[in-house]
Amino acid sequence: MANFKGHALPGSFFLLFGLWWSVKYPLQYLSQKVNKKSQRIYCFQRVDAIEGGLKIIFALIGMLAEQFVPDGPHLYLYSGENHDWVKLMNWQHTTMYLFYGLSGVVDVFTYLFPVVPLGLDRLMLSVAVFVEGCLFYYHVLHRPMLDQHIHSLLLIAIFAGACSTMLEVFLRDNIVLEMVRAGVTIVQGTWFWQIGVVLFRPWGGPMWDEKDHSNIMFLTMCFFWHWAAAVAIVAINYTLTYCCIQRRRAGRGEPYISLTAQQQKRDTSSQATFLSGSDEE
Amino acid sequence: MANFKGHALPGSFFLLFGLWWSVKYPLQYLSQKVNKKSQRIYCFQRVDAIEGGLKIIFALIGMLAEQFVPDGPHLYLYSGENHDWVKLMNWQHTTMYLFYGLSGVVDVFTYLFPVVPLGLDRLMLSVAVFVEGCLFYYHVLHRPMLDQHIHSLLLIAIFAGACSTMLEVFLRDNIVLEMVRAGVTIVQGTWFWQIGVVLFRPWGGPMWDEKDHSNIMFLTMCFFWHWAAAVAIVAINYTLTYCCIQRRRAGRGEPYISLTAQQQKRDTSSQATFLSGSDEE
Amino acid sequence: MANFKGHALPGSFFLLFGLWWSVKYPLQYLSQKVNKKSQRIYCFQRVDAIEGGLKIIFALIGMLAEQFVPDGPHLYLYSGENHDWVKLMNWQHTTMYLFYGLSGVVDVFTYLFPVVPLGLDRLMLSVAVFVEGCLFYYHVLHRPMLDQHIHSLLLIAIFAGACSTMLEVFLRDNIVLEMVRAGVTIVQGTWFWQIGVVLFRPWGGPMWDEKDHSNIMFLTMCFFWHWAAAVAIVAINYTLTYCCIQRRRAGRGEPYISLTAQQQKRDTSSQATFLSGSDEE
Amino acid sequence: MANFKGHALPGSFFLLFGLWWSVKYPLQYLSQKVNKKSQRIYCFQRVDAIEGGLKIIFALIGMLAEQFVPDGPHLYLYSGENHDWVKLMNWQHTTMYLFYGLSGVVDVFTYLFPVVPLGLDRLMLSVAVFVEGCLFYYHVLHRPMLDQHIHSLLLIAIFAGACSTMLEVFLRDNIVLEMVRAGVTIVQGTWFWQIGVVLFRPWGGPMWDEKDHSNIMFLTMCFFWHWAAAVAIVAINYTLTYCCIQRRRAGRGEPYISLTAQQQKRDTSSQATFLSGSDEE
Repeated sequence: MANFKGHALPGSFFLLFGLWWSVKYPLQYLSQKVNKKSQRIYCFQRVDAIEGGLKIIFALIGMLAEQFVPDGPHLYLYSGENHDWVKLMNWQHTTMYLFYGLSGVVDVFTYLFPVVPLGLDRLMLSVAVFVEGCLFYYHVLHRPMLDQHIHSLLLIAIFAGACSTMLEVFLRDNIVLEMVRAGVTIVQGTWFWQIGVVLFRPWGGPMWDEKDHSNIMFLTMCFFWHWAAAVAIVAINYTLTYCCIQRRRAGRGEPYISLTAQQQKRDTSSQATFLSGSDEE
Repeated sequence: MANFKGHALPGSFFLLFGLWWSVKYPLQYLSQKVNKKSQRIYCFQRVDAIEGGLKIIFALIGMLAEQFVPDGPHLYLYSGENHDWVKLMNWQHTTMYLFYGLSGVVDVFTYLFPVVPLGLDRLMLSVAVFVEGCLFYYHVLHRPMLDQHIHSLLLIAIFAGACSTMLEVFLRDNIVLEMVRAGVTIVQGTWFWQIGVVLFRPWGGPMWDEKDHSNIMFLTMCFFWHWAAAVAIVAINYTLTYCCIQRRRAGRGEPYISLTAQQQKRDTSSQATFLSGSDEE
Repeated sequence: MANFKGHALPGSFFLLFGLWWSVKYPLQYLSQKVNKKSQRIYCFQRVDAIEGGLKIIFALIGMLAEQFVPDGPHLYLYSGENHDWVKLMNWQHTTMYLFYGLSGVVDVFTYLFPVVPLGLDRLMLSVAVFVEGCLFYYHVLHRPMLDQHIHSLLLIAIFAGACSTMLEVFLRDNIVLEMVRAGVTIVQGTWFWQIGVVLFRPWGGPMWDEKDHSNIMFLTMCFFWHWAAAVAIVAINYTLTYCCIQRRRAGRGEPYISLTAQQQKRDTSSQATFLSGSDEE
Repeated sequence: MANFKGHALPGSFFLLFGLWWSVKYPLQYLSQKVNKKSQRIYCFQRVDAIEGGLKIIFALIGMLAEQFVPDGPHLYLYSGENHDWVKLMNWQHTTMYLFYGLSGVVDVFTYLFPVVPLGLDRLMLSVAVFVEGCLFYYHVLHRPMLDQHIHSLLLIAIFAGACSTMLEVFLRDNIVLEMVRAGVTIVQGTWFWQIGVVLFRPWGGPMWDEKDHSNIMFLTMCFFWHWAAAVAIVAINYTLTYCCIQRRRAGRGEPYISLTAQQQKRDTSSQATFLSGSDEE
């Protein structure tokens, strides 16, 4: 839906997932390090499955919203009488949601059937993000300058996310890549909101001049402020997660995570196995 | 041949190979897992050789078809009297087939002579796909908008396939990459058919308006529906293969493939060796 | 600041860092080789932290300079009366400095808290360079040809640096990548000076004709002369570092670094572990 | 020199190196395999040094030719009287040769001083090719269509070569990459000749119509015929090398290189170490 809600809805979805990932992956990384890399914490696999379920639900919500809003296509694709396609915008958005739904399905299957090759879930997620990017690329081509620019900035975040997720197919459980994914997803979420606010002014305010080059310049800069904010959010969540773990261990009378040179060394050694897919951490 | 047959022919070739790969590679992967990665199943190498032979045959069929159709160049490249090139379109298509033929030759040689370095077969295939992409890129430059757009969408699938195949040079026997290749090849096949149907309407129907932007938008979306379909096909074939193997083993009274955490673990460990070229599978 | 100082300031920063890196990394590499890769020389980690501090200081200087020059925005972003943005150029430059500051902060944290995953520092640096590149890309779009070309050449160095630094996330302590980073940073520094000199002629001299194509051609060539110079500088610094180490060892009566085939062999073996992140250095 | 000689000269250089590499690397690969990967054949390192020397000589010849042809700049860069640059074309070509010279210098140093990090030679070669590509990209921008297209095709080969050589920094002694480099270099050589023949018709013949689109189409196709030819040449040289080794061993009464499954297996295992830089082969 080319209106505020149509941007706020996916924005919120991405924001939720980004924030959740920025908590989940540090938790996984740190608790594995605590447990001396001994056993893979099984619960995290269940969490992946639940995530997949949420993706499916969100995707369904998105698709239904795009289809059945008052001015939606209501599942009509081609109207016979006036020989034309019906609401292709909504159909394209539906397609985007569809691929995120597929990604969710693969997540669930990966959990249910160990015979599914590892990495397919990341691959499917990466494809979903990539498809979203391609569809955006083509469907903002013939818009006014401001509209086109603000969406093309979104493409930077989208394709950055697609690439880093693609890398995760081969470098699974790489904490750096996972935090990149979390950050990029947060940026996507906040920028969707920004787009909605700039183009549709939900709370009134003056219209943005679509020709004014200084608006373009401001938005370019603003986009990277979102990046800086995302970096800060991820860092804060990482720190909070670390503190929680330390406190819980202190409560259980266990030793703190040692911050010694050895620890550092173990880090480097785990870093050494990044390129050979360090999932045994 | 810029007509329906000229798109249906390569489309069918790609479709056949894509479908075959989406069965073969899961079969290889699963049967290797069953056999505890002990011995490399030799028969699969013979299958590769047969594939190479098929590629050569298909390439020859394609080249002959392009050359000797009634309105073809019949191997004339330059006509002396009117000082011009003869049917360059057909010659370009012939060139595309030629490289797939070369790829087939390398496949056969890799099987016949163990001294041929491994990876050359994948490399040659990747080059063939890349060359096809380049030739398409240049020879749709000066077409009407719809024609150009529908072919440029094809380029996405082509270059995605070229990249993933290039990766296989270094990550041989990586099931994820192999399934990507299968999926992308299926998309190429179906999309060739789509192009033929849209541009040449073999079964009549109204002409597509080449200027109408909504047609462009629909085709963009339709292209990714082909992707979703390909994902589904690959998934279904993977499942069927798995079921066949299980039934056969059950028939032979052998244990089922265990779906325990250990199995999962072995998966992750094999996944861990992806980047170091998992050849022990 | 779109004037000479505004280019000389960042130019000097990059030049300083590039030169420093071209000394530091050979030093680290060679002294580790001398010490038989036994223990990681700890002091180098402290050096990283100090570097981070310097980055922060330089970034602050840059931001304050951009904000509080006489014709700067003085932290005003939007002026109410004439309903327009204030000095967006300066704001964009401030944003660039901001990300380098963030990179410095991450460097310091990586040193202080071993629990910070290794690679985040390189990642943040790479993001900072990438952001600089994106902002440059957008804010020279509507300039005269010469101005645009001379900045677009800078983009080559910027994105080359961003990519090589991104690789360092996975190939930490890879001497080749580190020397690439040093060289590219030197080029950026010198080219910033070149831009300032060409566009603003601090020492007078004739105006450059912005339309003249031969000026474009000369600058293109000149840019790669800077590359050649950077290569030479890095090579010289590497040699000097090597000589210093040899002399110091000679002074301490220790044996010279052997240049035998074994040495060569050890090199190759360490080279062999490049892709698995050579952390034992 | 924008004339036939100016294209034939570099073309011959590239052709010589491509052909030489297509013999040298198979020789190295096969003789190492024969010797059971035991010792690195030392002579090949001396050969690298000689290659470096040849590069330097060729680069010098090229630079002198560009400078001191009758219509060359004779080392004058800026002419005072008519306030303009002198023969920038020749200067740009000189710059290209310069970087190949630098690459040669690094080759020699790598041989002389084992302390030079491995991979720098490949890096420098890759940079030289990349610089050549960038300079070509910029200096054919404002040419007639045919001229621009024929050079832009060259860019495909150039950047493909730059990428594969860059990969060799991390995957040294990877026979596949080395054969890619050989093939791409041969294509560059032959295509330089093609350009010279098409644009300057050294042996007379009719002028090519620069506007005619069919000429563009033919050249695009012709470029990839050069690729096919290069593939054939590399394959033939590989075979000849193999036969020579076999005959020599037969003469010395040594066993043939075994073509058994074990051999195959060893291949795969060596293939397995590709990504961890297989130079111990």
